[in-house]
Amino acid sequence: MTIPAWKPIADAKRQATLDAIPQKWRITEPIPSPAEQRDVTGPYIQQYLSAREIEITELDAYAIAEKTTTGEWTAVEVTEAFCHRAALAHQFVSCLHEIFFDAAIEDAKKLDAYFAEHKKPLGPLHGLPVSLKDQFHVKGVETTMGYVGWIGTFQGIKGDARRGVFESELVRELRALGAVLYCKTSVPATLMCGETVNNIITYTTNPKNRLLACGGSSGGEGALIALKGSPGGFGTDIGGSVRIPAVFNGLFGIRPSSGRIPYEGAANSMDGQNTILSVIGPLAGTARSLQLLFKAVLSQQPWLYDPLVLEVPWRSDVEQETRALVEQSANDPSKLAFAIMKHDGIVLPHPPIARALNIVEQTLKRLGHKVRLIERSLAVADESRS
Amino acid sequence: MTIPAWKPIADAKRQATLDAIPQKWRITEPIPSPAEQRDVTGPYIQQYLSAREIEITELDAYAIAEKTTTGEWTAVEVTEAFCHRAALAHQFVSCLHEIFFDAAIEDAKKLDAYFAEHKKPLGPLHGLPVSLKDQFHVKGVETTMGYVGWIGTFQGIKGDARRGVFESELVRELRALGAVLYCKTSVPATLMCGETVNNIITYTTNPKNRLLACGGSSGGEGALIALKGSPGGFGTDIGGSVRIPAVFNGLFGIRPSSGRIPYEGAANSMDGQNTILSVIGPLAGTARSLQLLFKAVLSQQPWLYDPLVLEVPWRSDVEQETRALVEQSANDPSKLAFAIMKHDGIVLPHPPIARALNIVEQTLKRLGHKVRLIERSLAVADESRS
Repeated sequence: MTIPAWKPIADAKRQATLDAIPQKWRITEPIPSPAEQRDVTGPYIQQYLSAREIEITELDAYAIAEKTTTGEWTAVEVTEAFCHRAALAHQFVSCLHEIFFDAAIEDAKKLDAYFAEHKKPLGPLHGLPVSLKDQFHVKGVETTMGYVGWIGTFQGIKGDARRGVFESELVRELRALGAVLYCKTSVPATLMCGETVNNIITYTTNPKNRLLACGGSSGGEGALIALKGSPGGFGTDIGGSVRIPAVFNGLFGIRPSSGRIPYEGAANSMDGQNTILSVIGPLAGTARSLQLLFKAVLSQQPWLYDPLVLEVPWRSDVEQETRALVEQSANDPSKLAFAIMKHDGIVLPHPPIARALNIVEQTLKRLGHKVRLIERSLAVADESRS
Repeated sequence: MTIPAWKPIADAKRQATLDAIPQKWRITEPIPSPAEQRDVTGPYIQQYLSAREIEITELDAYAIAEKTTTGEWTAVEVTEAFCHRAALAHQFVSCLHEIFFDAAIEDAKKLDAYFAEHKKPLGPLHGLPVSLKDQFHVKGVETTMGYVGWIGTFQGIKGDARRGVFESELVRELRALGAVLYCKTSVPATLMCGETVNNIITYTTNPKNRLLACGGSSGGEGALIALKGSPGGFGTDIGGSVRIPAVFNGLFGIRPSSGRIPYEGAANSMDGQNTILSVIGPLAGTARSLQLLFKAVLSQQPWLYDPLVLEVPWRSDVEQETRALVEQSANDPSKLAFAIMKHDGIVLPHPPIARALNIVEQTLKRLGHKVRLIERSLAVADESRS
């Protein structure tokens, strides 16, 4: 049997990522197989952490930023805690492509020095660790997106001067906001997949049940945040790539409209496919953490740096109006309102999908939520075919 | 020689459009050929109009709206003057596809009655005639876009119930704003053309020199507004279709970003081509008239009716900031600032284009304007190919 030429290259890259974890955070005893230890969240990962590390990493991003932007906690302590927990997460579920803890701790030191000198945070994300899907370019490490062919290149181009130095627009903005970048998370090869598997990192499993998938394509983000190895991060979504890992891992995620978060200078699998645009969206353990990350990015006026971003700031007035409307209209705020469109007037869904929609409708009604059916007549389409 | 089957259908449609002009506004003597009478603007068209009709039609849209929204002029008088002038324009340069003057005058009467009853205008375009490129559906008439195959159909579909009753979203909004709709203007077949020619209306000529083209694809708009048969109207643009007829006819036009003016329910030639979106933009004789039309449409919150419109209102603060900046930075406000990018770093333009750019640069500098050259290195592109 011949070993294909790409395999040793992929193996070396996978080992290099593992080797980037400091020895003190390496698990030396054998890690149980997924069948032996399905769930590695909660008490399982906690056994490797100090009480203080658990205290820090189990707050949500919003609460952490409250402490790091006021100087209650130092950036260095928070960063080290998340680096440790992310290192453990990777050893359990293989969720990281790039690890740069040393650079992160250096950045955290600079942030602490800034706070000491200016008595104020650099920005709303001062001292908050933020993870990134491996589509964003960060100086000092490479971007493979799980392609063996991209190892040692810049987006597949050999000898390109941008390799290891270029940073994506969002990365520049996160740094300006005071965020600490420390790792890049796994993706499926080509990105167009609802589970996370590639020839470098092999397979990222679901930390709640390692016999199952963590979703994709922002699967590494989903798995890492579910293990609280990150308080929040940024993925991308075209057909579910933020939403699937969010739902598979019990997290919150937003797939914004296109033109909200800057994609400028990020890698992608399908350059030139501009018909249905991929978008960047945050994932986190709480909704308020998503809002923190989203508002922070918009506060950087990304439309001045990425021509595809719309000049639409965070609109607090719209947010307040919407919250007031919801409170006014709901007698019982636990009851929600849904609209269901069973077909678009042109194509009927296949029977299993139609059945699933009926189950959803009946379940929502049984739970007392409002359901409005959007009816589309098939008549016009039939007429046009005749 | 066999006459093709489409020809009598096209001829009948062209004749029907002409027949929609009331007898009193038909020119009975022979109309001189383009070679005999190149320029039909100014004194030439004025000879067929009363002094009062000239007074009304030679104001810009902004000034007309000042009079019709305050009750100084009635909607009926203004509408009749523009119907008359548009009828003459069509007979000189063949710029109209659809004529519905009777419906317009009925609408104007209702607007006058509204003003008499409420002592205020219906909206900021109260009583202002507005012309429309023949992509917009207006009840009572059809949309052919110059396709013989679309005669007697709705966008080519026979027996479609929408024919003659459906209205495009922009049309609904213009009516709500108080505008009076009275004609639809000519386009080239397929729309993808910088001159205006189709098998129904034949050729729309340039009113300033009928041996030349009026531009396209919003060519009928350009020709009609240049003859002051309309104070302003809406065209569409993907690669110049507002800008070309604006510049060919000495008018102002805006090609907005996509997602500003609602395209919902308008006809187009390339359904499904969503990579480079066509956009709707106004044309008029003055810049302030474009602003009037644009602001008026946005005041209708089109994003509530067309999912592709961005929720971005007219931002007076940005307008004021920009004006203040221009005034501050310019010692001499007649001097402008230009940026020129001679190539994009990947493809060099052909020699005649490069020469034209040099002439533009030198001319601007000679006139004392600021010129900033945007330099792009070709090196990166060369490297990536090696």
